[in-house]
Order: sequence, then C-alpha cells, then structure tokens
Amino acid sequence: MECMIPVKQAHVHPGITVEDLVRVMEKAGAYNGGALSRAVEIVGKMYKSRDITRFFGLAGAMVPAGMGGIVTDLIDSGHIDILVSTGANLTHDVIEAIGCSHYRGTERCNDVELRHDEINRIYDVFLPNESFIKFEEFMQDVFSSIPENSVISISELLSHIGRHLDTGILAAAARKGIPVFCPAIQDSMIGLQFWLYRQTHKITVDAFADMTQIIDRCFSAQCASALLIGGGVPKNFILQSMLMTPKGFTYAVQLTGDRPDLGGLSGATLDEARSWGKVDEDAQTVTVYGDATITLPLIISAALGRL
Amino acid sequence: MECMIPVKQAHVHPGITVEDLVRVMEKAGAYNGGALSRAVEIVGKMYKSRDITRFFGLAGAMVPAGMGGIVTDLIDSGHIDILVSTGANLTHDVIEAIGCSHYRGTERCNDVELRHDEINRIYDVFLPNESFIKFEEFMQDVFSSIPENSVISISELLSHIGRHLDTGILAAAARKGIPVFCPAIQDSMIGLQFWLYRQTHKITVDAFADMTQIIDRCFSAQCASALLIGGGVPKNFILQSMLMTPKGFTYAVQLTGDRPDLGGLSGATLDEARSWGKVDEDAQTVTVYGDATITLPLIISAALGRL
Amino acid sequence: MECMIPVKQAHVHPGITVEDLVRVMEKAGAYNGGALSRAVEIVGKMYKSRDITRFFGLAGAMVPAGMGGIVTDLIDSGHIDILVSTGANLTHDVIEAIGCSHYRGTERCNDVELRHDEINRIYDVFLPNESFIKFEEFMQDVFSSIPENSVISISELLSHIGRHLDTGILAAAARKGIPVFCPAIQDSMIGLQFWLYRQTHKITVDAFADMTQIIDRCFSAQCASALLIGGGVPKNFILQSMLMTPKGFTYAVQLTGDRPDLGGLSGATLDEARSWGKVDEDAQTVTVYGDATITLPLIISAALGRL
Amino acid sequence: MECMIPVKQAHVHPGITVEDLVRVMEKAGAYNGGALSRAVEIVGKMYKSRDITRFFGLAGAMVPAGMGGIVTDLIDSGHIDILVSTGANLTHDVIEAIGCSHYRGTERCNDVELRHDEINRIYDVFLPNESFIKFEEFMQDVFSSIPENSVISISELLSHIGRHLDTGILAAAARKGIPVFCPAIQDSMIGLQFWLYRQTHKITVDAFADMTQIIDRCFSAQCASALLIGGGVPKNFILQSMLMTPKGFTYAVQLTGDRPDLGGLSGATLDEARSWGKVDEDAQTVTVYGDATITLPLIISAALGRL
Repeated sequence: MECMIPVKQAHVHPGITVEDLVRVMEKAGAYNGGALSRAVEIVGKMYKSRDITRFFGLAGAMVPAGMGGIVTDLIDSGHIDILVSTGANLTHDVIEAIGCSHYRGTERCNDVELRHDEINRIYDVFLPNESFIKFEEFMQDVFSSIPENSVISISELLSHIGRHLDTGILAAAARKGIPVFCPAIQDSMIGLQFWLYRQTHKITVDAFADMTQIIDRCFSAQCASALLIGGGVPKNFILQSMLMTPKGFTYAVQLTGDRPDLGGLSGATLDEARSWGKVDEDAQTVTVYGDATITLPLIISAALGRL
Repeated sequence: MECMIPVKQAHVHPGITVEDLVRVMEKAGAYNGGALSRAVEIVGKMYKSRDITRFFGLAGAMVPAGMGGIVTDLIDSGHIDILVSTGANLTHDVIEAIGCSHYRGTERCNDVELRHDEINRIYDVFLPNESFIKFEEFMQDVFSSIPENSVISISELLSHIGRHLDTGILAAAARKGIPVFCPAIQDSMIGLQFWLYRQTHKITVDAFADMTQIIDRCFSAQCASALLIGGGVPKNFILQSMLMTPKGFTYAVQLTGDRPDLGGLSGATLDEARSWGKVDEDAQTVTVYGDATITLPLIISAALGRL
Repeated sequence: MECMIPVKQAHVHPGITVEDLVRVMEKAGAYNGGALSRAVEIVGKMYKSRDITRFFGLAGAMVPAGMGGIVTDLIDSGHIDILVSTGANLTHDVIEAIGCSHYRGTERCNDVELRHDEINRIYDVFLPNESFIKFEEFMQDVFSSIPENSVISISELLSHIGRHLDTGILAAAARKGIPVFCPAIQDSMIGLQFWLYRQTHKITVDAFADMTQIIDRCFSAQCASALLIGGGVPKNFILQSMLMTPKGFTYAVQLTGDRPDLGGLSGATLDEARSWGKVDEDAQTVTVYGDATITLPLIISAALGRL
Repeated sequence: MECMIPVKQAHVHPGITVEDLVRVMEKAGAYNGGALSRAVEIVGKMYKSRDITRFFGLAGAMVPAGMGGIVTDLIDSGHIDILVSTGANLTHDVIEAIGCSHYRGTERCNDVELRHDEINRIYDVFLPNESFIKFEEFMQDVFSSIPENSVISISELLSHIGRHLDTGILAAAARKGIPVFCPAIQDSMIGLQFWLYRQTHKITVDAFADMTQIIDRCFSAQCASALLIGGGVPKNFILQSMLMTPKGFTYAVQLTGDRPDLGGLSGATLDEARSWGKVDEDAQTVTVYGDATITLPLIISAALGRL
C-alpha cells in the first residue's frame, strides 16, 4: 500500500478560489471530481506549450446555455487553433452576435402554449421566433456578398459569416484566422438559410474541401491536443483526422453526459480511442461525465490559473 | 378516478410472443415499458397506411451491434421512405456487405494491447484493421466509376456505393430507390476514403444538393412520420426539414439513451419539438429511453405483428 | 480472428416469440442487447437446478409499475428462495392486495394541482390518497393481532402481514414460506403505520434479528444466485450477507439504470463485487443497463422458456 | 419578452473565486449549471436563518470519495441539525477515523487480481482488506461498553460509536449532539460487526425507536430544509417523516446522478414530492443532476460564501 495515494477528505471555505477547489478535488481524487482535477491538469499542459496544436470540439446546445462566451475567449486568447462545431452552436452564436438573446425559461411548461406564443424551447432556455426573422435578414445579406458561381468550402462560408460579425465565436475565429470546421453545416438554421439563398443563386459548397486542411494540421502538429465538449460530429471529425497520420493525440479531454455502454461514440471512453490509434498509447486522457455547463467553466477557470 | 386506467400487474409465460409481451407492458403502462408499448402503437400506425411518408433516422453505432439487419429489412419491406444516417453506420454497413465481420468482444480489455493486435474497439465489439484494407480497395474501386469533373450530391454518392453492393442498408436503398441522406458524410471512413480518392481525381460533392429533395419530401407528404434511433445529425436533419413546411410530423418515435436535462438535442423530448413546430401540436409522439439494441428489435417485431 | 464470434445482423418477424428474439440479440451480441441475452442464459441456469439457493433483490418503484405480478409469480413457481425488498415496494404490494389500484398518469403535469386533487405521483403513475386511508385501516387491523410485548423480526412482521392477504408478493411469500427481508422497513408507509400503532402498543421489532437467517442461508447454500432489480439496500444486503461465508455468489444478474462512474453501489458493476469476494472469481455475472419495466419481463419470459 | 431574463454568455478568468464562478453560472442560467446556481441560493437561505431545521441526507459512496470531510465540517459549523445516512458511509467514516485510508485507484483494472491482492474496489477507490481487521477490533471493543440486556435505538448505537472517535462524521455528530439516523444500519459493515457481537451478547436494537424523534423534529420545526446527497433510504426517510405533519419542507435541494424516467425515488424530481405534500406547494426546490464529488464541494463553498 505504501506507493498508493490516500484519498484526502475534502474541506472547503468561503472565498475559496476555483483553483484551490480543484486542488481539493484532486486530493480527494475519486469519481468524476477526481477526473475533473485530472482534466484541469491536462488542459493546463495543453495551454502551457506553444508547440501544441489545440483542437476544440463543440457539440451539445452550449451557446444557448451561455457557454459560447468561454469558447470565444479561448479563441481570443490563443487557446484554440482549430475549432470543430455543430451547425446549431454556430447558429445560436450568430443569433447572439446580431443582438438577439436566448432567455432563461423552464422545462416545466406547455410546449403547445409556447408554440402559440412563438417561443422555441431548448430544455429550459427559450428562444423567440422573432430572432429567426432577424437571423434570416442578416444571413441573406451576408450570403449576397459571396461571388456567384464560386465553389467554396464550409470553413470559408463560416469565415465569411464571421467577418460580418463583431462578437462571438465566428467573429473571434475570423479575427484570429482560426478555421471553423462544421461537416454537417446543412444540418442547422445556417444551412437552411443557405439553402434558401441557393434557390436563386449559384454557389457550390464543396463538402470535402476542408478535409485536406484539417488533416494537414494533424500532420504538421508536433504535438496535438483535443478538448471535446460533448460528442457528435465534432468529436469524431477531430479524432478521425488524426487517423490519417502515423501518430495520435498526446492530450485529450472529453466532457460528456453520455454513457459508454450504449456503444455510441459520444459516450465512448478515450481508452477506446487508443485501440484505433486516435490517441497515443501513452496519451494523457480523461473523460469527465457530467453537464458541461458546470464542468467547462470550472475546468477552464482552473486551467487558466495554472499558466 | 373513474376515468383513470389502472396499472395491471404483469404476468409472463414461456413461449410468449413479443406482441403479447408488449400488450403486458401496455397494460402495466408505466415508465419506459409503458413508453415502449406506446411506441409500438405509433410505429404500427406509421406502417399501416400507404399515405404516410416515413422518415428514419439512424445514429449511434447500430450496425456494428447488428441492428443494420433490421434497417435493411425495413427498407426491403417498404417501411422506410427516407433514410438519414451517420456516416459511421454506413461505413460499417459497407464493411459487412463486402464480407468482413464485426466480432463480439469485451469492454473489459486493454486497449493498448488491442492496438498492438490491430483490433479496433467499439464498446464490446471488435473490428480488425484488416477490414479497413478490404474496405479501402472496395471504396477506391467504386469511386473510380464516378465520371471525372462531375458535381454530385451526397445521396448520389451513397446510391452509387449501394449499387455496387448486394446486401445491407445501402444495397437495399439503392435497389428500392430510397434516398439515403448523410449530411456529415466527411465525418466517417467513407469520407476519408473519398478524400483520398479526391487527391488525384476531380469530383465535387455539393454539400447542399440534397436539401431540396428532403424538404420537397416534407412538402409533398400528406402525412409524415419519423422513427429516430439515437439523436445526432439524423434526428435534427429530419426534424428541421419539416420546419420549412407549414406542418409538422404527425407521428414521431425516438429511441435514445441520452437524458434531456443536459440540453442537447439528442436527449431532448419530442414535446420540446412541439414548441418549434417540428412535430404537430396534436402529433402522437413518444420517447423510449434505453439501449436501442434492446428496444429497436422489440418495437419492430411487435409493430410488424400489428399489420 | 478465427476464434472470435462474428456479430450476426438482426432479423425479426411478426409473431416472433420472446425466446427467439433473445436468440437474435444473443447472435448480435453487443451492448445491452448482448448483455440481456447473457442475463437470460444466466437466469436460465439459476432456475434449472434445484441445488441453487436463489436470492432476489427488489429496489426501485417496481410494484407501482406493474412488475410486482412477475415477482409474485416467481415466488409461486419456486424461483425465489429469499426476497430482499425495499419497504416501498411492499407498501405498494399491500395497496394492490387490498383492492386499491395504481393508475396510468403522466409526468407532464402540474404537481400542485395533483396535490389539490389528492393524487400522489410516481413519475407517470398516479396513486390517489384514498388508497392510504384503506391502507391505514388494513394495517392497523393486521398489527392488532400481534401479541403485546412481543419482540419480533422484520421478516416476521412482513410474514404476519402476508398471511392477512390473498394476492401479491407478501401473500405469495407467506404461502410458500419464503422469507422477505427489508432492512429499512421503517423507511416506508408500512413503517409509518407501524410507528403509529406503536404509539399505543408495545411491540419491539429487533433490527438485527433477521441477519442470522439470511447469513445462514448463504452458509448452507451449495450454490447461490442473485437476481438484482435496481440497487439500493436489497442489492447490498444480499451481497454483504455472502461476505460472511468463505464463498461468493456463483451466478449474479443486475438490471439497473444507474451508471458506474458515480461510485454508488447501485450502479456498480458486478466485476467490482469480485474484488470484495461477494461474487466468485469465476462467477457468471452480467449487468443489463436499462429500465427494468422493459428488461425484467423480457428476461423472465425468455429464461422460463429455457426450462 | 420584456420580463424575460436573457442568458448571459459566460466569461471566466484565472483566480476567480467559486462564488464568482457560481454567479457566472447563475447569469447563464441554463441546464444543470443554472440549477447549481439556484441550489447555491437555496442552500444559502437554509444556512442564513437560525429558525430553520436542517435535514441532511447522505447516500452514495461519498466518504470513500473524500466528501465526508465536508459533511463533518457542516456538522461542526452548525449547518446540519439532523443527519440521515446509509450505513456504508458511516462504515467508511469509522475506517478513516481509526486511522485507515481509502486510496486513489482506477476502474480500469482486473478485479480478480485485486481480490488476490486483498484490495476492495469502489469504482476508482481502493480499500485494503486490512482496514477491516482494524475496523473489527475497534467495533467489537466499542460494542463491549454497551450494557447487556439493553434495548437501544439505531441513533443511540451510532452516537455510542461516535463518542469513541475523535474525527469524522460520527465523532462530530456525537460532539454536537446531532442525531444520526440510519434506518438500514444492518445493511453495512457496522451492521455485520454488530451482528457478530450479538452472537454472544444480548442487546436489542429497536428498529422503530428513532421514528418518534425524527417525526418530532419535523413537527417542531418552524421551517424545515433538506439537502439530499444521492437518493436511497436517506432521501425517502427525510421526506416521509415530514408527511406525518401538516406541512412540508420549505427548502429542498437534491444532488443526484440518477434519472427521473426510471420511476425510482432516487431520480425523482422534487416537483413529484409536491404532489405527496413532502415539500410545500410553494417550496423553493431544485435538483442538480451530476456527480456530487463535483457539485457538493462547489455548492457548499459558494453557499458558505453568501453568509
């Protein structure tokens, strides 16, 4: 037993910083609290060295829940080199950036009444339909400055949108020249708006145009890290891109509420990713099971504090 | 209390049919067993009328778990009119169709050893690397018959693959002329293979080319139903396509292991979809929480029995 | 790969029996569907031999959901030798046995309105307050035939109740002479009723009186099996009783919706139980994650079919 | 929309205090992060007034995970008036108090090897068998000072143990005169030890002796609050005791990783408790879904900061 580390009982106090609280979790070291402390350590390492290429996967309805601000800040401060997102998060990012808001609602409500009130629900977040009217105006206007007959990639389309915005994820990414990949862009309100625009304009979005760029970034990375919020397309697209190279990710952290025994990739452990070679055999990895509206702000606060 | 229906205690016996077991669950009527019996009733209605356009969403690693056979049969028997899938399920469908197998493994294993043995793990399913060698040969060969300089949609690409296969989902869909939509096709081994092929050949896959077709099917449907296995892109792409029309889905059933309180669409209730107008105000809907490797075969067996 | 068993794609048909459906899941063999087929095999073995002492753990609100009928039948047919239950399940068993009903309700409701309507909610099951009035009358009457100044065990108290009933779990157990253990009997409506009775009568329930009997049954068992519905006190009480003997359980199956990574015993794997010696090193065990209102009737139907 | 509160995008910074982080979650206000901020507000109210009787429920393997320290501190600082616990948490509390340790292990291990190494596993926490040898010595010694032929309550038994300890939950409770209720004390290593002692000594533990005390505390409370860690017997025993009075809890917070749709009380919402009258119609309640090794230290830190 001598080499084993004892669980230290936790003690907290008023005024404690997040960093100190994470140290308390680290010394307790068990279950998801322990996993969270290891996530902070790994994310801290991701952020410390300039030689690490940092991939960030964004799935789940994170922007409607206010987590977009953290992602924007991470881009602005240079902590994200490649972003892979769902189309929904980017749609809600645009909605906020053009001055509309999501609202604090409740899941204990009558959805038919909400429908009559023209309010869309995302669990306990409410989003009025009128936002989509402003969104449509904005998107159609933005698309109109794309030259006819052009063939563009999804990341170019997103970068084009970002250049028309001042705040939020797409704006920050455009400003910093960070690519935003979104393989299933059609599967979002941005996609529906672009489809509408295409009814009368000829622009081709080449579904595969972005793959060379993300795979090149995997190849050229001295060392690569992945911070994955949720699973879905972002998680897989990041991990599979590394498959094309002889190496795997050196650091990988996933925050998810899914469970592994259903077999889906979203809940799969990062150990499983080792068998595929997506992460290195000796990679430092951890999965924190829980709601990212709690774990993401906690981990980022504490990891930034270690710089 | 007079109008309320009592919970009837369950009794089962050897030799009981699945249909009768579902009747037992219906009369108990509680929790997910009750939900499952309502799912059977709704799916039965989906299948009974010829005037219903049936959408089927396939997410989660269902083909590696042997659930692809059920999907293939549903296509063959005319119970799926539009299929939306993840790229991973279609990749594994091709792997089976070219004569390779997934194997029954265990999640209690050493992933680094698996890596050395060239075995990829999907929870408790093992897939040898050698399958991907055969897969690559097949895919590159199939792609070589697509004319250079063509611009195709994702569903055309998938239909092209399906025509080169004899068994499985893509083969059945090609045979029956059922469109297979897969917005994030890049995010899969099929996608990686196509990217490889594109290194030396000029074919453009238009990301948005399929949207008109799926939205048209929503418009033209007298009545539309959705059977959603898992969440992810398939769930959202099916539901959002209906958003473009004045009506919503009349019948919707989701089988998922996710939970609603995390806010993600995959775990969202179909009540939430009512607020958006994705499903009708008076639609018949139900979510069955659980592993689809149990609930899917159970529901399909029983629903087919009601025809 | 030669010794590995391929996943067989599932095919189902109308009229299929539950046994055949489980064979389909067995041949697919993945995730919880595969686990369920292994559970059927293990439960089948539990039931085949007369030399196995069969423990049954009943947690979760199973009786309000209609699963009590299955437990009653298993007692009647000699498939349960020792039952450990929560007090709540036994309370609801008595409520049904005295002629009251649980009703099929909905979880999408206003709980304050239910309160005003004197209806108690258990997820989507409704239970009118008036049941508890009949329950109180019955219980107070039953307790009145226990001799004053007696010291009894919890299982004697429960057996006394069972002898006053004609149907349900407690009645069947009393009829068959099966002990029903319920360590936390105080934590239930039965407990509250007994406390009321004790206000004016002197009967002592000795909390520890039952332990010798359950541990003796562990000692005397040639071979022991555990079928655990949910976790809670029943799971732990069954497993810990075996700790007092040199051996462990030979067969163990758990049906639970909890997850292992939270550390609680309810979601703990049966592998974990091996480290404690609660189950044998080479025990046949499986955990099926999911809602027991689906998995219990399925497994019992199929296991009985194998006799 | 005017009266609705917009979701505020989250921003964090190095050195942020837990209180400030919770304010960030409060302003985002969505999903479990929003629920956690409401939990802090409600727990803050529980702690502010001297006129509130505070019940605390402790289920799940919290002490092995280091959360016992927080519970001990809350007792010492007067923030818990009545504690209801599982026997397991109290067993592990004694193990720590007599100088043994739990150790940080891993869930990716071979449980049969652990068995051979005489190490018991609780998810990723390891506990050497030798602790139980010291535990047995201690417990048998402690029991020896209970007078023969006495009839005691469970809380008296636990208080007797606590008086023989210097640190931990039972010691703090004994010191402060806080009752510790544990209806299923038999279902634990403390219970097994007491059963061993009883083989040769005559002491009766009256299972129902504690009920009057806890119900009296419910009756006499001007205002009552419940902080429930996990579900199980502690949650139900606290809530049902209030059922005997005309009022319900005014404040209630539950931290759980279970889900409501399985029907079990552990995952049940506190809204459901309103239908029973366990909590007041206008009670302030919230459930935070997630792992309490993260949410408990976070909530307590922030709530103490609001005093």
